[in-house]
Amino acid sequence: MSARETESAQDTGSVTNTGSYPGSLSTSDTCHVILLAHGSSDPHWKETFEALARPSCDANPKAVVGYMELCEPSLEQQIVRLKKEGANCIKVVPLFLARGRHLRKDVPEMLERYRKEHGISLILTPPIGEHPALAQSIKAIVDDTLKAP
Amino acid sequence: MSARETESAQDTGSVTNTGSYPGSLSTSDTCHVILLAHGSSDPHWKETFEALARPSCDANPKAVVGYMELCEPSLEQQIVRLKKEGANCIKVVPLFLARGRHLRKDVPEMLERYRKEHGISLILTPPIGEHPALAQSIKAIVDDTLKAP
Repeated sequence: MSARETESAQDTGSVTNTGSYPGSLSTSDTCHVILLAHGSSDPHWKETFEALARPSCDANPKAVVGYMELCEPSLEQQIVRLKKEGANCIKVVPLFLARGRHLRKDVPEMLERYRKEHGISLILTPPIGEHPALAQSIKAIVDDTLKAP
Repeated sequence: MSARETESAQDTGSVTNTGSYPGSLSTSDTCHVILLAHGSSDPHWKETFEALARPSCDANPKAVVGYMELCEPSLEQQIVRLKKEGANCIKVVPLFLARGRHLRKDVPEMLERYRKEHGISLILTPPIGEHPALAQSIKAIVDDTLKAP
């Protein structure tokens, strides 16, 4: 076990960065989901992400949206809220198509900080763009687009 | 008709920026699709977008991927290629979740320039994130994530 892993194991919570869809997530009965969006000062941006998350959140009270920056509720506000509601583990699902610098560096650093500050397990899943369901829905959109009158 | 509309009507091609899914696209039998991705110097980024586009392109020879910057084939290279193959109209489907500055300003300006240079109709569709299929696939991903062992 590396020094970093030892340090993490001694803390209250933990941060896990899962490698790939599907399957390798660990969970518990009290695990919740935060759909992580980037955020923007443009109000239409937030509307789009709220619409993207609506079916997930309507169907599941354990799923909420949080923003990295420029919009509220922030990722940290949602972590605090879910912990108060009894979550002991939160899976953070990035509403990003691919891993740029934010997902390779910034978000893992944010989660490491929040884990220490709030004492809760935080699991970063792959971005939605790496899930096979996304590629299939894009195919449906392309089919629609080519067939449109 | 405004001066700008008059000018466009006199050119060979045209650029149409469709407002919302679904429905309002105009098309023809020789319309093709370019799935427009942003591009990055990180090779993993391109792999993700190629995987996202694969079901669309495998199922449909009229669909190809093109990149705004930093990756090839570029959007312009694909426009030239499809025109040579007989396309008289290309729908550009942004592999973006929401409209930031790129989709509000940069891409429309690029398409206006390419339309004039290459004499072909270019139709900018809404980003995939505004299509209801995306929200449904995100719900499936959240369901998977919450159920994962």
